[in-house]
Amino acid sequence: MARFQPELHIITSGKQSPREVIHICTLVHHLVDAIHLRECSWSSRCLYDTILALRSSGVPAEKLVINDRVDMALLTGVERIQLGSRSVGPSHIKKKFPSIKIGVSVHDAVEAEEAGMAGADSVILGNIYRTDSKPGKAGIGVGAIRKVKDRLPVVGIGGITPNNAAEVIRAGATGIAVLSGVFLSRDPQRAAEEYRLSIKGAEVL
Amino acid sequence: MARFQPELHIITSGKQSPREVIHICTLVHHLVDAIHLRECSWSSRCLYDTILALRSSGVPAEKLVINDRVDMALLTGVERIQLGSRSVGPSHIKKKFPSIKIGVSVHDAVEAEEAGMAGADSVILGNIYRTDSKPGKAGIGVGAIRKVKDRLPVVGIGGITPNNAAEVIRAGATGIAVLSGVFLSRDPQRAAEEYRLSIKGAEVL
Repeated sequence: MARFQPELHIITSGKQSPREVIHICTLVHHLVDAIHLRECSWSSRCLYDTILALRSSGVPAEKLVINDRVDMALLTGVERIQLGSRSVGPSHIKKKFPSIKIGVSVHDAVEAEEAGMAGADSVILGNIYRTDSKPGKAGIGVGAIRKVKDRLPVVGIGGITPNNAAEVIRAGATGIAVLSGVFLSRDPQRAAEEYRLSIKGAEVL
Repeated sequence: MARFQPELHIITSGKQSPREVIHICTLVHHLVDAIHLRECSWSSRCLYDTILALRSSGVPAEKLVINDRVDMALLTGVERIQLGSRSVGPSHIKKKFPSIKIGVSVHDAVEAEEAGMAGADSVILGNIYRTDSKPGKAGIGVGAIRKVKDRLPVVGIGGITPNNAAEVIRAGATGIAVLSGVFLSRDPQRAAEEYRLSIKGAEVL
């Protein structure tokens, strides 16, 4: 039996307008556990306004995760951020803002362990499978999830489809993260439903 | 007689490496009152590391002003930020972080007044003179400074040289801000000395 209800995270593509992002989020937020706003090219004002618009549109603050910008999270009442290799390390942020929940994006089990030591509350690990988002990079496979899962919560990312999502959960991931699979889908609502269904039935072996 | 000691602000160019920025700052920080780090393309980590490196190199935290990124200021113990049209409005930031000193970059007296109403502690107003940084835009002249100076502290920017700097101070500016004039000068230290000298002798009429 599954230990818990696996989580579905979706991540914005960096290719859509605030209006498109807001539209898709209003369609799917009830189907997902976390919406990561990862829009490195947006201005602070644009990001801030979009977060407020999402909240006004009914997206719960608890489901929002702001990539990199701890200030935008603090200013909008969002309590989760996601850090990458271009971000300030989690330990520095935890020290100043202990209540912020920090996820860190990592590429292998070693980085995951380092992130945990530095104060990360969770990691997004990948790419698990081969994906067009990372051309030429072979997937690291679900073995890496097994290595990390007992140390801190790990969400799998990279090339995850409704067909292989259950395998990621069975390896011990607390959830899956999907970027183009939902935000760039022709039918984001249906895509989110399919992903949701695919992890719902997964059993941890 | 001058009411006060006019301030010399320098602003990074957005065209130099962290190493160049740090090098120039170590040469000139004793000659200037404020160093604005305005590097929109740097990653959070790069900005954070550069601020720490500046402090380790002897640049006082009180002289640093971080453009846009209130998180980077908070994380590094810098208490001054500068906001532009792509930033979150000052009122939102003041509400959450009342101790942060906020400058706002404005283009005319009306914008300056709005910034003051929204909680700005000061404005940088310009371009005062014609400048290569804003091709095709005529300078607004020092008259705009006179309109604003009694409402909040105003620093003039744009096309300011050692030859016209005194006029800006005489119009009622608390200081001048210089971008390429120092950071892109062949001899930044000498340039800073010349600007410093040019405002030192200015008398408010």
